[in-house]
Amino acid sequence: MNWKPYIERYEKELLENVVPFWQNHAQDREYGGFFTCLDRDGSVYDYNKYMWMQWRIVYMFATLYASEYGKGHSDWLDIAERGFDFLYTHGRLPDGSYYFELNRKGEPAMAPFSIFSDCFAAMGSAALYKATGKTEYRAEAESAMASYLRRIPNPKGKYAKELPGKERYLSHGSYMILANLGCVMRDCLGTDRFEEDTRSAIRNVMEKFHNPEFKVIFENVRPDGSFDLESCEGRFINPGHGLESMWFMMRCGEAAGDEALIARAAEYAYEQYEFGLDRQYGGLFYFMDVLGRPHMELQYDMKLWWPHNEAVLAMLHAWRLTGEKKFLDAFLQMDEYSFSHFRDAEYGEWYGYLNRAGVPTHSLKGGKWKTFFHVPRCLLLSLEQMKKIQMKGV
Amino acid sequence: MNWKPYIERYEKELLENVVPFWQNHAQDREYGGFFTCLDRDGSVYDYNKYMWMQWRIVYMFATLYASEYGKGHSDWLDIAERGFDFLYTHGRLPDGSYYFELNRKGEPAMAPFSIFSDCFAAMGSAALYKATGKTEYRAEAESAMASYLRRIPNPKGKYAKELPGKERYLSHGSYMILANLGCVMRDCLGTDRFEEDTRSAIRNVMEKFHNPEFKVIFENVRPDGSFDLESCEGRFINPGHGLESMWFMMRCGEAAGDEALIARAAEYAYEQYEFGLDRQYGGLFYFMDVLGRPHMELQYDMKLWWPHNEAVLAMLHAWRLTGEKKFLDAFLQMDEYSFSHFRDAEYGEWYGYLNRAGVPTHSLKGGKWKTFFHVPRCLLLSLEQMKKIQMKGV
Repeated sequence: MNWKPYIERYEKELLENVVPFWQNHAQDREYGGFFTCLDRDGSVYDYNKYMWMQWRIVYMFATLYASEYGKGHSDWLDIAERGFDFLYTHGRLPDGSYYFELNRKGEPAMAPFSIFSDCFAAMGSAALYKATGKTEYRAEAESAMASYLRRIPNPKGKYAKELPGKERYLSHGSYMILANLGCVMRDCLGTDRFEEDTRSAIRNVMEKFHNPEFKVIFENVRPDGSFDLESCEGRFINPGHGLESMWFMMRCGEAAGDEALIARAAEYAYEQYEFGLDRQYGGLFYFMDVLGRPHMELQYDMKLWWPHNEAVLAMLHAWRLTGEKKFLDAFLQMDEYSFSHFRDAEYGEWYGYLNRAGVPTHSLKGGKWKTFFHVPRCLLLSLEQMKKIQMKGV
Repeated sequence: MNWKPYIERYEKELLENVVPFWQNHAQDREYGGFFTCLDRDGSVYDYNKYMWMQWRIVYMFATLYASEYGKGHSDWLDIAERGFDFLYTHGRLPDGSYYFELNRKGEPAMAPFSIFSDCFAAMGSAALYKATGKTEYRAEAESAMASYLRRIPNPKGKYAKELPGKERYLSHGSYMILANLGCVMRDCLGTDRFEEDTRSAIRNVMEKFHNPEFKVIFENVRPDGSFDLESCEGRFINPGHGLESMWFMMRCGEAAGDEALIARAAEYAYEQYEFGLDRQYGGLFYFMDVLGRPHMELQYDMKLWWPHNEAVLAMLHAWRLTGEKKFLDAFLQMDEYSFSHFRDAEYGEWYGYLNRAGVPTHSLKGGKWKTFFHVPRCLLLSLEQMKKIQMKGV
């Protein structure tokens, strides 16, 4: 297959359509930090600064600067470093954790009830260390990672509302994120300090959450390993999450030279893709119930940008690593759906939210849950995959 | 106008389509309490017992028993009283507040972080007192009401995550609910103990949240009374909530013989209805942004059953109390939309969730946010309004 037009399209999309949108509109030049609530044309519709959205921007600009596309782009590094300064100065608590939200001026607005603030502080700081070699970033990456690990057993802390009568579950997300964090730390800091945590997280993801009967990854399983088909939480399927998890696993498998892990993760990714497909309207469902019973979330049948980003990445990884044609076909289908439905040729960046039929419901390009992260990560890592595939000549 | 076919249809809907669905499927005869997560055919898809959903069932069966339709229906009273026993025994904390959620067996599952548990415990117990005259119900109504009033200044208690940097707002909902609670207490307990709270809540609703420029009721205004057009929270409009609030106000106005309050509430209700109408697909939007900027909630454009219930009630009250034909026309439009889109002739009860175009997205009849409450309340109070209108001969 000729990958040249794909590579050219993805490069153009990243460098001319997505990066400029955020570079032009997201920087708060008055107070520091970023605007993430950006409407279609880049205008700001809300000024709150959600820490995990902010840190993702730091991570992404630092990662782009450190990539093959970063040469000469001190402007990207500058954005990431100024972001770090604002977030470290205003967002960090003495114990190393991070607030959930600051107001525009940088004053703490919401308590540190989410460990995702710490997770993305670790990733952003680590990427800055990789980009610059400055020890202050390394120190903060290790500090935020330590805060994340410390909080895992009780992630919501004093804000947890569950009582003994509540059914307990193991969460696929927490293992998947730990596995990815470990890999980011190894890649950016060159440390193997988190190897045991990472390997254990990978084992948990692969052995506990995949259900062979339904051929899909469950988000929640009981601590004894059994699947709960009696509750909405137990039956909850998140197609995009499972696909993201599986390309994490393929990368972990490749780094460790673990062929069996790669093969299993590729197969699970394909199952997840097949399970998540909306065969009537195309695209992937946002949330599902494994038995097709009513989903507790009202927006379950919408089409969101990020599961499609994860599907593109999962299928490209699987195609490169296994050579099975079904992965190439699935990539082509997700690439076509994504570019024809989500991208905005007129103002840049991608729409985030479509109804089931694929029509945008929101004009926003960024919001409380969408920032400069999934789209550029997908484009950048897809380019890396495509170039490797191209070199193999397939 | 001939109201006879409407009255016959609403009576049939209430007594043959809605009540039997819940009577047949919602009772947990093994552990007590109710199932509220009911699929289209009444089958249970989740066993959690959310206290405000449970107490609403107690309230509604007790209210039906005390209504003109309750004669001979000791079965309805029995359901309400057994519900009270389960909820009082398992759900109540020593300080008089209520857990948010129990598991099927009645064990506490989620902490008492919502004052709505207490709010609906007060309403359910008060309705049971009205139905039976038993002092234990009166005592519990007063206890739960006291807990609600005690918690209003800090409703989430230790679970509140807001810090000083967070913009503070007055919430339309909290005043509106207090006004309604006061009226329920006066009606059911015959007490004027909460008159001052009620009158003050009414003044706050009518004077603080209506925006004359946009002609709509805001959900959040700044403590100094100004409207915040810079944030999603400040621009948030909830059409159904405003309509519900305005029929509460019309009833308060009628009870107090306050013609000016009635006239203003009727006019605000009509403005809210006009603002909330989806002129492309019909029906009312769930959530809106007053400036049409992106809404933070993904499901903002869905059609939910309850705003349509509130619109029917608001327009019937306004038509009876003012005689202005626009209210009658609006009632007819909402009646037609509701019965043609939400009701399920085959299995009983109403669908709760439609997409913007009016097609059901969920087959459920009850869930985490839908129970035996809005539909039967709408039908019962509509019948009361229609019969009064019929007597006036208009």
